[in-house]
Amino acid sequence: MVKQERAARTRQALVRAAAEAFAEEGFVHASLGAISKRAGVSNGALYFHFANKRMLAEAVEAEAAETLRRITEAAWAAQGNSLQRVVDASHELMGVLARDIVVRSGFELAADMARRTESPLRRQWRHWVEDVLRGAERGGALAEGMSWRDGAGVIVAATTGFEVLGGSDAGWLSRQNITRFWEVLLPCLADRQGLESLVCAG
Amino acid sequence: MVKQERAARTRQALVRAAAEAFAEEGFVHASLGAISKRAGVSNGALYFHFANKRMLAEAVEAEAAETLRRITEAAWAAQGNSLQRVVDASHELMGVLARDIVVRSGFELAADMARRTESPLRRQWRHWVEDVLRGAERGGALAEGMSWRDGAGVIVAATTGFEVLGGSDAGWLSRQNITRFWEVLLPCLADRQGLESLVCAG
Repeated sequence: MVKQERAARTRQALVRAAAEAFAEEGFVHASLGAISKRAGVSNGALYFHFANKRMLAEAVEAEAAETLRRITEAAWAAQGNSLQRVVDASHELMGVLARDIVVRSGFELAADMARRTESPLRRQWRHWVEDVLRGAERGGALAEGMSWRDGAGVIVAATTGFEVLGGSDAGWLSRQNITRFWEVLLPCLADRQGLESLVCAG
Repeated sequence: MVKQERAARTRQALVRAAAEAFAEEGFVHASLGAISKRAGVSNGALYFHFANKRMLAEAVEAEAAETLRRITEAAWAAQGNSLQRVVDASHELMGVLARDIVVRSGFELAADMARRTESPLRRQWRHWVEDVLRGAERGGALAEGMSWRDGAGVIVAATTGFEVLGGSDAGWLSRQNITRFWEVLLPCLADRQGLESLVCAG
């Protein structure tokens, strides 16, 4: 293994170990010593890659943001009704929150590090949902009298709720639970004609 | 002022100061010295009432739980459609989260103190919503094919989202925003006949 490749692996192991420590103990309590130990590297190797805990947290958030970007881009590229894109992306996001500790930790870090600021990951998700709903309104995919703003508000609030509640009970993040959510909501949200083509299970 | 009354006032000032400190800095960072200073009492007075920070946090949670109990009891006692009770209670709860720092702090403390456990206040709210929706199903107030479980799931997820998002942007907690939420959701949730009598603005 060449030196560069080994460095990249060490860095990746540290980001993952930091995400685990932040998710279990919170940003404040997690110690750099415990993180390097968890990653199986020396303290020196940790400091070679990250000057302090905040930089580790930023790396966790950046990797989670990249995963979220991949999810929304894949959903965006799909054909068909624009509401289906939000349905599909919500299933992917909830699944990844349940199984990927870096994404879970990324969503939770903002509240841990600085109170009363919007989490950058939640903002990224909110902006994307708003963009898609705007497009859905323009394309006539929303029910009569439904505005993109009201539709996006309900979707963002509920998915944020699933994310938060899923932190202590993963059942909230199950495909079944998210499918039921869309089964309840889509008949209110979607244009009657488009509704028939939408698949709540993603 | 008799001695007992003064002690009760001091205790109340400490609970409020602790809620402010926890909400601003988080449970971990808030110091007992800063809390007694904020409450305008001596450290000795603080220790007379509370042996440690955890007991202060429990007092904040208990007071918030009492406020939540009053809100749900008042909504429960109201006449009419059972879904209206959830609408009314959600408006009261979001309003109190926006203006009462003890309630805001109470909802946030669980995640601060012990990760991966359901917040007792969120559980209290979830159980109440589930109870009301069960009653709504029994009373025929839900739309055809709607189960109390699915309805409660959407309401609990969305209101948890409003609570969390409202921590950094109070606009999420505004009466207008909650009213729009119900305007979107109730046509899916409520029996068509009962729907006409429901007031989304609470």
